[in-house]
Amino acid sequence: MSAVPAAADGEGRRRGRPGYDLATLLPVAVELFNERGYDGTSMRDLAARLGIAKSAIYHHVAGKEELLRLALDRALGGLSTVTVRARALPAPAIERLEYLVRGSVEVLQAESPYVTLLLRVRGNTDVERAALGQRRAIDRFVAELVAEAVRDGDIRPDADPMLTARLLFGLVNSIVEWYRPDRGAASLADQVCAMAFDGLRPRRRRAGQ
Amino acid sequence: MSAVPAAADGEGRRRGRPGYDLATLLPVAVELFNERGYDGTSMRDLAARLGIAKSAIYHHVAGKEELLRLALDRALGGLSTVTVRARALPAPAIERLEYLVRGSVEVLQAESPYVTLLLRVRGNTDVERAALGQRRAIDRFVAELVAEAVRDGDIRPDADPMLTARLLFGLVNSIVEWYRPDRGAASLADQVCAMAFDGLRPRRRRAGQ
Repeated sequence: MSAVPAAADGEGRRRGRPGYDLATLLPVAVELFNERGYDGTSMRDLAARLGIAKSAIYHHVAGKEELLRLALDRALGGLSTVTVRARALPAPAIERLEYLVRGSVEVLQAESPYVTLLLRVRGNTDVERAALGQRRAIDRFVAELVAEAVRDGDIRPDADPMLTARLLFGLVNSIVEWYRPDRGAASLADQVCAMAFDGLRPRRRRAGQ
Repeated sequence: MSAVPAAADGEGRRRGRPGYDLATLLPVAVELFNERGYDGTSMRDLAARLGIAKSAIYHHVAGKEELLRLALDRALGGLSTVTVRARALPAPAIERLEYLVRGSVEVLQAESPYVTLLLRVRGNTDVERAALGQRRAIDRFVAELVAEAVRDGDIRPDADPMLTARLLFGLVNSIVEWYRPDRGAASLADQVCAMAFDGLRPRRRRAGQ
């Protein structure tokens, strides 16, 4: 059935090649999904990349969609944690918004392949549609925070909340296009927040400050 | 040879179905490339979408890669014009940079399917690699403008030029993810520039201004 030779002994075949479990299999699947697209990747491709039989993968997961769900859960888990904390923070909306932006950049840095996959999801399967639904809920929360910060006078009154939310997270999400973990950009969250909240132009102190 | 029935008469076959010329064929090709990916789209798919024979398409273009080149040229043409004008502008770097950001948002709005395609190009063919080369040249020009504006004191001294260039155009390019021409966002370039250059927080006037 598989184009890739199966492991010689039945036991190896059931357990998968030593060294591969779900935790080591998932990053390889995500790498492949990001290279070829989720729709363009088959379980056969994954088996070939891993150098194991397809059956060895099915020992760990029910199929391709389960791998996608696990990968998206990892990205969304990190983002949800940041969102829940931002919601609970006893601080003005502008500070909760900045916390959320900063935390999202950090999740993106820590889990960049998973967040990249999440951002490319187009909604062709139930798993993808559920992930898109969670992303939209976060977008609505961001727009609410922007609207509240505008009411507080902490964001310019001419900023449209939904458009601002889109631009703000467009800025954050664009980082996946060039970010490489080995480059190390410790101040990335700082630079993003400085640009978005204070702008690139220097702020002059007011007289008397 | 083609799975799609050819036009019944020989003349129609040579000229393509009335109503299709290169100008009307290209947007359909770009739509399909954006839906399925360039690699995932065949000339057969395109013929099926157009409802014409593959041979009718070959009457207008040599092949799929020529369609890609024409589409990318359209996006890059608009961006190059803005870049050339920004370079020639007799104004400080910060104003040339703002002109470039504003102009890029406007090109994106006017040519969103073409810019979307350009931003998804990954460099698998000569045409794609040439387009990526042109994008990188624009990125370097942006970084130079940022560095010059920092020296002029018009951008905060702690802004790293290359990172700032990436964030600035990450912000601009992220618009393709949600922009729809029919939504009409006349002030989009204003909102982008306001966020990037002045920040979301209100700027207080200095005493004496």
